[in-house]
Amino acid sequence: MLYLVRMDVTLPADLSPEDTADLLAREKAYSQDLQRDGRWKEIWRVVGEYANYSIFDVADNDELHSLLGGLPLFPHMRIHVTPLATHPSHI
Amino acid sequence: MLYLVRMDVTLPADLSPEDTADLLAREKAYSQDLQRDGRWKEIWRVVGEYANYSIFDVADNDELHSLLGGLPLFPHMRIHVTPLATHPSHI
Amino acid sequence: MLYLVRMDVTLPADLSPEDTADLLAREKAYSQDLQRDGRWKEIWRVVGEYANYSIFDVADNDELHSLLGGLPLFPHMRIHVTPLATHPSHI
Amino acid sequence: MLYLVRMDVTLPADLSPEDTADLLAREKAYSQDLQRDGRWKEIWRVVGEYANYSIFDVADNDELHSLLGGLPLFPHMRIHVTPLATHPSHI
Amino acid sequence: MLYLVRMDVTLPADLSPEDTADLLAREKAYSQDLQRDGRWKEIWRVVGEYANYSIFDVADNDELHSLLGGLPLFPHMRIHVTPLATHPSHI
Amino acid sequence: MLYLVRMDVTLPADLSPEDTADLLAREKAYSQDLQRDGRWKEIWRVVGEYANYSIFDVADNDELHSLLGGLPLFPHMRIHVTPLATHPSHI
Amino acid sequence: MLYLVRMDVTLPADLSPEDTADLLAREKAYSQDLQRDGRWKEIWRVVGEYANYSIFDVADNDELHSLLGGLPLFPHMRIHVTPLATHPSHI
Amino acid sequence: MLYLVRMDVTLPADLSPEDTADLLAREKAYSQDLQRDGRWKEIWRVVGEYANYSIFDVADNDELHSLLGGLPLFPHMRIHVTPLATHPSHI
Amino acid sequence: MLYLVRMDVTLPADLSPEDTADLLAREKAYSQDLQRDGRWKEIWRVVGEYANYSIFDVADNDELHSLLGGLPLFPHMRIHVTPLATHPSHI
Amino acid sequence: MLYLVRMDVTLPADLSPEDTADLLAREKAYSQDLQRDGRWKEIWRVVGEYANYSIFDVADNDELHSLLGGLPLFPHMRIHVTPLATHPSHI
Repeated sequence: MLYLVRMDVTLPADLSPEDTADLLAREKAYSQDLQRDGRWKEIWRVVGEYANYSIFDVADNDELHSLLGGLPLFPHMRIHVTPLATHPSHI
Repeated sequence: MLYLVRMDVTLPADLSPEDTADLLAREKAYSQDLQRDGRWKEIWRVVGEYANYSIFDVADNDELHSLLGGLPLFPHMRIHVTPLATHPSHI
Repeated sequence: MLYLVRMDVTLPADLSPEDTADLLAREKAYSQDLQRDGRWKEIWRVVGEYANYSIFDVADNDELHSLLGGLPLFPHMRIHVTPLATHPSHI
Repeated sequence: MLYLVRMDVTLPADLSPEDTADLLAREKAYSQDLQRDGRWKEIWRVVGEYANYSIFDVADNDELHSLLGGLPLFPHMRIHVTPLATHPSHI
Repeated sequence: MLYLVRMDVTLPADLSPEDTADLLAREKAYSQDLQRDGRWKEIWRVVGEYANYSIFDVADNDELHSLLGGLPLFPHMRIHVTPLATHPSHI
Repeated sequence: MLYLVRMDVTLPADLSPEDTADLLAREKAYSQDLQRDGRWKEIWRVVGEYANYSIFDVADNDELHSLLGGLPLFPHMRIHVTPLATHPSHI
Repeated sequence: MLYLVRMDVTLPADLSPEDTADLLAREKAYSQDLQRDGRWKEIWRVVGEYANYSIFDVADNDELHSLLGGLPLFPHMRIHVTPLATHPSHI
Repeated sequence: MLYLVRMDVTLPADLSPEDTADLLAREKAYSQDLQRDGRWKEIWRVVGEYANYSIFDVADNDELHSLLGGLPLFPHMRIHVTPLATHPSHI
Repeated sequence: MLYLVRMDVTLPADLSPEDTADLLAREKAYSQDLQRDGRWKEIWRVVGEYANYSIFDVADNDELHSLLGGLPLFPHMRIHVTPLATHPSHI
Repeated sequence: MLYLVRMDVTLPADLSPEDTADLLAREKAYSQDLQRDGRWKEIWRVVGEYANYSIFDVADNDELHSLLGGLPLFPHMRIHVTPLATHPSHI
């Protein structure tokens, strides 16, 4: 089941360069694990913004919330989820 | 080059059932032709709304506008385009 | 799987009283069938507005869109869907 | 009498892990007491957000404000209340 | 129990002067009956707008929706309801 | 002359409990003095929010700004003023 | 007492050229009478829009609403009023 | 003196193809005359929308309003004007 | 050439009383110099808000930006500029 | 390929004058390098705001994001990108 997710990141101003690097490395690993197992199906950068649009393919609402809530950057992001359905013109 | 496009449809209240059917058939054929040639890469229905989110893969801004402006439903849609870039965490 | 759905109705100004009565009767029957089979779990009127908040309990995004798209009032409503997950404080 | 309530939480950035754990434990206990006595009738997580939608069943506006104002997280939440009425299609 | 209600009126462009006069006379009578029995406690014009802010004093949410839904102008108004509670500084 | 005023309070996160108590006591005294002399005609709590709707009855715009600008909480509030006129249906 | 007023005009699409000319002539005469007696103190066109910002100098809220409600274009305008006070830096 | 201008077009639904063609031809001629004399310095289509962003280079606010108000499409457009100044980093 | 300017002030929470007094004194002197030379033509307080609406009369966009950018409070204000033109009903 | 980009700057309140000067010098050099090579085609100050509108001429979305993401002020800006296409009235 598919969802479009937009994530906007705002890092705390007082995060040290080391903590930032560590946080972003953990975020990247977390994202790539989910991309590899197929649940984080697509991820694109929004041009000019510290934000992404992503497609998730998960079993249900609870699984999606669990994946998003576990993001290392979760406390520093504004997230909006749009549930998607099959389009009748889809080939 | 990828773009996320949201289209919200409002059909005119006085369109006859025949004209509506004809318009939607032309829209579907137009969309499916572009899906087949790979430029209309994805199309999803927004749950509960007469709207879709789509991914287009085109050469440039002009080509995207030309494809969208040619939609049979173009005069009856509100369209918003978000340019997408490669995300550094993308595998 | 649960979703919160808000529906705002705007009837066409030129709908005859007979057509209005017929449309609303079909909407009511449609809604009550879905309430009886448990998929339209709750429906409340928003005080002062021609609008409702509802809870749907369905298998997936596609089923929800199919139920909402089939509403007799669908062409006359603005609908917004919020996917819900289990809350950790829920008893 | 029913109300739909949305609560969005923003924890202070400088709250220690201990204070956070204590605050959340008190919030959970407070919520579960009200769920058990039937006044906090439903609580759902908004997928992807640190937010909930809840249904309260209380005697009047004053009782609702008193319950919400007593939430341990109250100073850290943005809350919006929508009063609900019986829907004529409700079975 | 008190509620603040804002009502914004948009009359249909094609309503005849006679129908308009009749509609407004019925609205006025309806409003004044409720003012006399104490449930429509206050009504003020918003300066420069075809709109009012009102205070209603009713038993519960259902009664308020029933009163508002019965307004002759109800199909031509956008209404927003804010539930009010006792303020701790109120003397 | 009447005005509807909405005030939303956001206390500074680092205000000590003593300073908070002192500030709120001064705000309450200030409000009650104006309620007693009839210029702060009504005050209601917005259910679920650290906010109020109030009715002021003052001589003119300058007097209203002077009263609001003197509120001990003024630096910590977002205030919006709506001028009110007599409604033609008012009895 | 001063107010800033913004007026946005939307003429009905089916108004005949004669009715439009007549309506605008009456609006102009009405405005110029009030400018001459000093109550419509200033009027400026918003560049690029069928809208104006105006300053009114009237005795009170009721007088302002009465003047605005009497505008020949009143049924075709969206109006927003901002009450103004003396600024402490004003010379 | 430069201004950024955004224009969003909504053609009346009942405009005949002949009137539409005539209107658009007059709009195009009007625009190209101003482009040739240097006052309509730039015009770009907003991708996916019946809208443009333009740069005007005119003597003052009055000249800009006069040019925009004279557009054949003016009654069918929503226009927003942003005044521009020299940027200190401009080479 | 005239512009309507709205300025909303938010002073930094940690500014000392002395620095605040000095800053506001410099702002007042700056404003009054411009009022005396006729370029800051009008200034009004927005009732209930730490904000003003002002009218500037300057030679061009660059001069207006230069005046506004030089305000001692500039780093602490949100400013919005609306260019004004002569209104055809102006007497 | 052209894009309209709006950038709104908010410098951190606790940045020292030296760090601010250094940051702005690097931003200016970065911008001027891109102006000289033709990719940052235009830059204008928004009158009254710490913001600019710019036109970029780049090969594709990825190049634009790379240029914007490299701005020394990027962490302190809100950026919005609008893709532009050739306008049919362009001469």
